[in-house]
Amino acid sequence: MFRFECDYSESCHPAIIERLAETNLIQSPGYGEDAFCEAARELLRRDCGLEPNACAIHLMIGGTQTNLTVIASLLRPYQGVISADSGHINTHETGAVEATGHKVLALPTKDGKLSAEMVQAVYDAYQDDVTKEHIVQPGMVYISWPTETGLLYTKEELSALSRTCRKLGLPLFLDGARLGYGLMSSACDLTLPEIAQLCDVFYIGGTKQGLMMGEALVFTDLKLSNGFRSMMKNRGGMLAKGRLLGIQFQTMFEDGLYYRIARQADEYAMEIRSAFAARGCDFLYPSMSNQQFPILPDAWLAKLEKDFAYSFWQRVDESHCAVRFCTSWGTQPEAVEQLIAAIRAL
Amino acid sequence: MFRFECDYSESCHPAIIERLAETNLIQSPGYGEDAFCEAARELLRRDCGLEPNACAIHLMIGGTQTNLTVIASLLRPYQGVISADSGHINTHETGAVEATGHKVLALPTKDGKLSAEMVQAVYDAYQDDVTKEHIVQPGMVYISWPTETGLLYTKEELSALSRTCRKLGLPLFLDGARLGYGLMSSACDLTLPEIAQLCDVFYIGGTKQGLMMGEALVFTDLKLSNGFRSMMKNRGGMLAKGRLLGIQFQTMFEDGLYYRIARQADEYAMEIRSAFAARGCDFLYPSMSNQQFPILPDAWLAKLEKDFAYSFWQRVDESHCAVRFCTSWGTQPEAVEQLIAAIRAL
Amino acid sequence: MFRFECDYSESCHPAIIERLAETNLIQSPGYGEDAFCEAARELLRRDCGLEPNACAIHLMIGGTQTNLTVIASLLRPYQGVISADSGHINTHETGAVEATGHKVLALPTKDGKLSAEMVQAVYDAYQDDVTKEHIVQPGMVYISWPTETGLLYTKEELSALSRTCRKLGLPLFLDGARLGYGLMSSACDLTLPEIAQLCDVFYIGGTKQGLMMGEALVFTDLKLSNGFRSMMKNRGGMLAKGRLLGIQFQTMFEDGLYYRIARQADEYAMEIRSAFAARGCDFLYPSMSNQQFPILPDAWLAKLEKDFAYSFWQRVDESHCAVRFCTSWGTQPEAVEQLIAAIRAL
Amino acid sequence: MFRFECDYSESCHPAIIERLAETNLIQSPGYGEDAFCEAARELLRRDCGLEPNACAIHLMIGGTQTNLTVIASLLRPYQGVISADSGHINTHETGAVEATGHKVLALPTKDGKLSAEMVQAVYDAYQDDVTKEHIVQPGMVYISWPTETGLLYTKEELSALSRTCRKLGLPLFLDGARLGYGLMSSACDLTLPEIAQLCDVFYIGGTKQGLMMGEALVFTDLKLSNGFRSMMKNRGGMLAKGRLLGIQFQTMFEDGLYYRIARQADEYAMEIRSAFAARGCDFLYPSMSNQQFPILPDAWLAKLEKDFAYSFWQRVDESHCAVRFCTSWGTQPEAVEQLIAAIRAL
Repeated sequence: MFRFECDYSESCHPAIIERLAETNLIQSPGYGEDAFCEAARELLRRDCGLEPNACAIHLMIGGTQTNLTVIASLLRPYQGVISADSGHINTHETGAVEATGHKVLALPTKDGKLSAEMVQAVYDAYQDDVTKEHIVQPGMVYISWPTETGLLYTKEELSALSRTCRKLGLPLFLDGARLGYGLMSSACDLTLPEIAQLCDVFYIGGTKQGLMMGEALVFTDLKLSNGFRSMMKNRGGMLAKGRLLGIQFQTMFEDGLYYRIARQADEYAMEIRSAFAARGCDFLYPSMSNQQFPILPDAWLAKLEKDFAYSFWQRVDESHCAVRFCTSWGTQPEAVEQLIAAIRAL
Repeated sequence: MFRFECDYSESCHPAIIERLAETNLIQSPGYGEDAFCEAARELLRRDCGLEPNACAIHLMIGGTQTNLTVIASLLRPYQGVISADSGHINTHETGAVEATGHKVLALPTKDGKLSAEMVQAVYDAYQDDVTKEHIVQPGMVYISWPTETGLLYTKEELSALSRTCRKLGLPLFLDGARLGYGLMSSACDLTLPEIAQLCDVFYIGGTKQGLMMGEALVFTDLKLSNGFRSMMKNRGGMLAKGRLLGIQFQTMFEDGLYYRIARQADEYAMEIRSAFAARGCDFLYPSMSNQQFPILPDAWLAKLEKDFAYSFWQRVDESHCAVRFCTSWGTQPEAVEQLIAAIRAL
Repeated sequence: MFRFECDYSESCHPAIIERLAETNLIQSPGYGEDAFCEAARELLRRDCGLEPNACAIHLMIGGTQTNLTVIASLLRPYQGVISADSGHINTHETGAVEATGHKVLALPTKDGKLSAEMVQAVYDAYQDDVTKEHIVQPGMVYISWPTETGLLYTKEELSALSRTCRKLGLPLFLDGARLGYGLMSSACDLTLPEIAQLCDVFYIGGTKQGLMMGEALVFTDLKLSNGFRSMMKNRGGMLAKGRLLGIQFQTMFEDGLYYRIARQADEYAMEIRSAFAARGCDFLYPSMSNQQFPILPDAWLAKLEKDFAYSFWQRVDESHCAVRFCTSWGTQPEAVEQLIAAIRAL
Repeated sequence: MFRFECDYSESCHPAIIERLAETNLIQSPGYGEDAFCEAARELLRRDCGLEPNACAIHLMIGGTQTNLTVIASLLRPYQGVISADSGHINTHETGAVEATGHKVLALPTKDGKLSAEMVQAVYDAYQDDVTKEHIVQPGMVYISWPTETGLLYTKEELSALSRTCRKLGLPLFLDGARLGYGLMSSACDLTLPEIAQLCDVFYIGGTKQGLMMGEALVFTDLKLSNGFRSMMKNRGGMLAKGRLLGIQFQTMFEDGLYYRIARQADEYAMEIRSAFAARGCDFLYPSMSNQQFPILPDAWLAKLEKDFAYSFWQRVDESHCAVRFCTSWGTQPEAVEQLIAAIRAL
């Protein structure tokens, strides 16, 4: 069985396990105050093009934890977070945001992307409501990049969102669980420093991009970071051996490994995409990153699922389903070759 | 200015203020453990057709407080409450349910009513999801009766909902902030005892039906009431002088005053409805209770608003808006006459 | 039975019920935006000696609701509220503060009063802790005045607390559920304007001082009031017919009735105190306000409880208990006479 | 610098890093549903002496996360958790339990241990309180074993606690962050199966005992485990690559490595203890496990701290402090030798 159903089927990139082994018995302080974390933060800061005193970086364990902690930290109790209704916080986190007391103001979208206009409209509707004390105040904006649908906000789109958010006083939070796959996509017209400039807080995903676990959270609006380490502990998200995160991010960012392996995964994804397209398949979303959503006849799926694991996405019509194939840093060339051969043989 | 914009513009029915004055200096225990509350609970129980040991009744202050306390009490932390997206808990409570940690699983509806099929579908989608531990578990169902759109579930509809909820193990909670206006509507085919049999917990609204404040919460599933008085205090909703609620409900239910004044309000609403209909107006919702939603030309609204307060509901097209006119126990005949005359003169 | 077990056995002062009756059918907007509330806020502001733009006043229903809403509004998620361990929020609110997510940092005291030194010590301990991200940050200070033990902070004590709190950036919140009884006590050396100057937020209690219900919350630090009306709704504490609170506070404060009835209650309490003292009784706390805590032989209690309701406080030794006798605005002269006669006859 | 200030200065036991390397590229499902986790749960179950259908085991990341998730899952909203005031949940988790809405009912103890009598007394006080709806209901009991003071409940003590808890319907939750160090202590008269029988839920600590991270949570009362995986996700505590925890616990428990390394750490701790005792030092707590709390002259500390890291605990008098020296699975013989030599040379 070749697994394409998600991007975290393996543990971590071999360079990481090597580094963890080398440093294993070195003693260090806990909770992220060690030299590995310090070095990792420095590398991340550099790649984001940020000045040392213009950002605060926190290394966290996983995405849901990061999302709930950031949102709980930024909002006042009567505020909610604007999100696409397909946003991870609205769909696959078992109500983790609501468990912190906040409503997800979920907006319907056709492809999982918010626009500046949509945010402005929510804001205006709130401001215009004569009963505004009876409705949830929009307090921040959450987007994912790439989205859960594999798409990228363009520089123009993200700039517009950023301008609108700043005009309205709404912090813009970008969930970058798959940030590397976005940055390396052929469809990407944004750089990491540009993302850092446009967002108030965002994270550089590790779990799905070669680390055992870890998300590097970057606050570019420093006042939003106030008390954040206490927030992390308050929500159970401060790893005792924080060094584990530091060592992994250091390994990934000291010579660009993070980007190289993401680029490879994207390339595999595009090969798979081409194979499906060559068979005349449509796609649910026009993704150019590591997640591909072909719409396939049920009969094809019955054949493919014998050797290839994928994710069911949604039924499209009586005889077709949209499914998801993911590549990752860990995808093996042979797996891609076999899958493409199988597609051609359908 | 004649006020039709809501059903709580006055304080309370004169019979209540009289009774409060008569009993004013009598000493009693606090927190709802007095003889007035006991008498009120007995009258409410009788009207619900419930046996003394088959229900638990709690007198609460207001609707949002009641909703949030019931929901927080019934759900496990990872569960959410199914509601129409127009449900009061989803729209006009400033995120009070989310502040207790729970997601409102809001379903789009065309008229504000949930169906048994919709509930079944949410349940099935949860059960069928292979990642169900990552999504919010539906834990109960909230409906309002009449709905925020003025409509009534029929006996058949409520029975179907009740059967489905019981089959699926989802408590059915009915928000009866306007219960009396529903029961007295010419469109109603349900009795209070039938509602009591079909719901697991519901309330008999007072604030909008002649009391200064107060909602009588009835648990017909006793195990759901376990610890509820502690919940009330825990959420700041236990009135020190609980007698105030007891006296008011006692006054309303000892000789049917509650029903008589609701019937009168409904009749006024139907007269207003007829007046608009006679002028050829459409209605946003086919309400037969105390809230009426005519769709009116902007020019008419400009004239009406000089003398009559109403609520803006939504713009329908370039030159028409849907608005809401409410009657209540406190609506004066003269106000209705004046409004009807004005409608005829438009 | 003459009831001295609490200060809310009756409904409200006759002047209030009269005013409620007079205004009963007047129509007004809801949620505290009516003319009665506006007038009440103006009177309260005047009595507090505050400029119109130097305070924000919110009329709320009850004490627990007020406490939890203020605390939830002022603290960041990882912060706690410093309180005497006998503070109402720590003892008799069923965990309402914790239900908002915050720890009560309860300090042991001998008499229920915090000192500036105690607050400074908590602050210093936090600042000095090298693991401070692992402990709750003190975020505000809660005191009650009079305390639950009937005592008053003197001007010197409250000034010292206020100076320390302001130096440390900790808002000082004063629970004035019995504020009138404190102000009118012969032991009081503070005025209402002085309290307003020394606290950042406090409330003027109504429930225990002649109103049916109601607490007038005064923010003298305006930025702390930001979004507070949304907070009120978010916690279910915004009364639909807010006018009920406005009318009551207006009645109490337009000609000083609030103070006159509190003074009378204090005088009755001192008469009862003197009667116990004349019989050689000790007191658990040296209260000079409306709550008295005599330490009495069990045999005396057995006799008294036939005709007089009081509250058990604590067992002091094998044969003595401390109990509480409360007077209130509603205490009748005859009840005091009878109690004093009974004490003399013990 | 030799580090004795905590028991998590290194990453993990070499056998674990080896196993992680070996299994690194194997593909597996996420979220703890892989074969490694299954094998680990089986080994843990076996060591606990529990039948396959008599327990539910969840592998979690860290202690605070585990504590808050268990407590939030077990309590009703108005309930609190009984704990020693020195309990980790009450002191060093930044209010994580309160952030879930629950009060820690912290009892003063002299040595960090609760007794059955203390629990009974809290329960009785609640039951006897006529205002019990106004106070937090005790809903469960939290203990740590070993305690934060290095002490062990004896079989008799734990049995008494367990009997009392079961009689009163209070689940007993044992925080075993250092469970191995307890089991291997010469002072221990309990076995792991006995602990499993006496507690309703407990965890076998990994983070402080040779794993990179991980705590194995065991429910022996199955109904308490209901919905727990949803709770884990709801609180952000479900590791995407759950296999990481499975592999580590499997390595530790397949041939008793967990016990062997804990025993070694305890032996080192006793050697250090003996060295201090030989110099006439007193100890703050009579710990026989891996944490030692000698009371030392300030002058000695000034000398020791040049080469040895320890934790400050508390000042004892003008010239002495109690400090903590921890050993762990990672403590090197040379470090112990050097420390003992330094103690002798003081």
